[in-house]
Amino acid sequence: MRNIKVVLEYDGTDFYGWQIQPEKRTVQGVLESVVEKFLRKKIQVIAAGRTDTGVHALGQVANFFIENDYDEETIKNAINANLPGDIFVRAAEQIDNSFHSRFDALSRIYIYKISKKKSVFKKRFSWYYGHTLDILYMNKGCELLLGKKDFTSFAVSKSKKENMNMDIKRCYFRETENEIIFEIEADRFLHKSVRTIIGTLVLLGSKNLDVVDIEKILQAKDRRSAGSTTPPHGLFLKEVKY
Amino acid sequence: MRNIKVVLEYDGTDFYGWQIQPEKRTVQGVLESVVEKFLRKKIQVIAAGRTDTGVHALGQVANFFIENDYDEETIKNAINANLPGDIFVRAAEQIDNSFHSRFDALSRIYIYKISKKKSVFKKRFSWYYGHTLDILYMNKGCELLLGKKDFTSFAVSKSKKENMNMDIKRCYFRETENEIIFEIEADRFLHKSVRTIIGTLVLLGSKNLDVVDIEKILQAKDRRSAGSTTPPHGLFLKEVKY
Repeated sequence: MRNIKVVLEYDGTDFYGWQIQPEKRTVQGVLESVVEKFLRKKIQVIAAGRTDTGVHALGQVANFFIENDYDEETIKNAINANLPGDIFVRAAEQIDNSFHSRFDALSRIYIYKISKKKSVFKKRFSWYYGHTLDILYMNKGCELLLGKKDFTSFAVSKSKKENMNMDIKRCYFRETENEIIFEIEADRFLHKSVRTIIGTLVLLGSKNLDVVDIEKILQAKDRRSAGSTTPPHGLFLKEVKY
Repeated sequence: MRNIKVVLEYDGTDFYGWQIQPEKRTVQGVLESVVEKFLRKKIQVIAAGRTDTGVHALGQVANFFIENDYDEETIKNAINANLPGDIFVRAAEQIDNSFHSRFDALSRIYIYKISKKKSVFKKRFSWYYGHTLDILYMNKGCELLLGKKDFTSFAVSKSKKENMNMDIKRCYFRETENEIIFEIEADRFLHKSVRTIIGTLVLLGSKNLDVVDIEKILQAKDRRSAGSTTPPHGLFLKEVKY
């Protein structure tokens, strides 16, 4: 058995997220069927981050086991030749059999793009926000989120027993001529947490919230205390670190 | 009667070009039906450039006549509120009744994007070309196209009597990290001429043609002498000058 690690790019628009679901077009579902066709064998692909419906990936990492002795380049090209235009394998390499793309990840990096100018060319890959945002003020809010904290207020919890901690290593906004880009790195991300953090920080940037409120929201440990969840089409899983 | 000039942006992917056709989704067709719904009256929208199937626009210019006294901002917002996500009116202004968006245009500017890196995020709006291109050499070819010339070799002629002259004012390639961008300005463009010029200059950039061959192709006045027509999804009507 050989363990193959792949780095994937996908346009999430036409997928019901990563995770395989009956009757739905998902990234895992499409990828597994292409790899299975190539290997003529049932396999399971594991990914570092189970992205939601409509969320994109620049550098998703996944792994699967094969029995054949194809070299890495052949595997990559054979998969790419059969993938639809909205998924692309950027790299494939053989890795130690103990490697698990989800459990071994030390951190994930997401970016979120906010478009300042309405444009038909940006709408697929950014969230249009038509009002002024105070970036410096939003970045003050970012500083309060750093470190290991309970993010119950910013996430959709799957069960009462779920560990709601996230250790945010970096998070900040930067501005280009037509876009505001948010980048965040953490050990793990709770369900919808990046988009709820954005929705809350945008309230700060539009002066509908004060920096001190961020601390209060964290302490409330109640999803209703934070802002709304922004749309998925601005979100990209950029990188996974091991 | 008031003459309204609009500047339009559209993602050409899901349109059968500009010009209205029965049973086909075209930009003119969609735009006219939205304006007609707003004005409750049949109208005709005239555009500066009748873009082909799959070709995009950053700054298409069009005009139409209305009888109502709505102000420009109201017209723009009412149309945008009813347009699908792949067309957007960037500006609307009342202009002299004698203005004709096609006949009065002094020049049109097109850009063509060649992507050097394969990416699911670029594929909708650029042509992926995986081999090295010599930009300096292609720009030498560009210089030979400048000025008023017969472009029979680079175009699809609609009739034997058609005027096959184009007066190219500017054309050049520039390179960014992941893209090569071609920009061309001319008084008029023959059918498929930009994409056939690109297809021919790419032969130059890949050393399958010499600079001197460009002169020979022009003189041949035969479509078969030039290179192939590149795909439409890299092409954008950028601007129209009056």
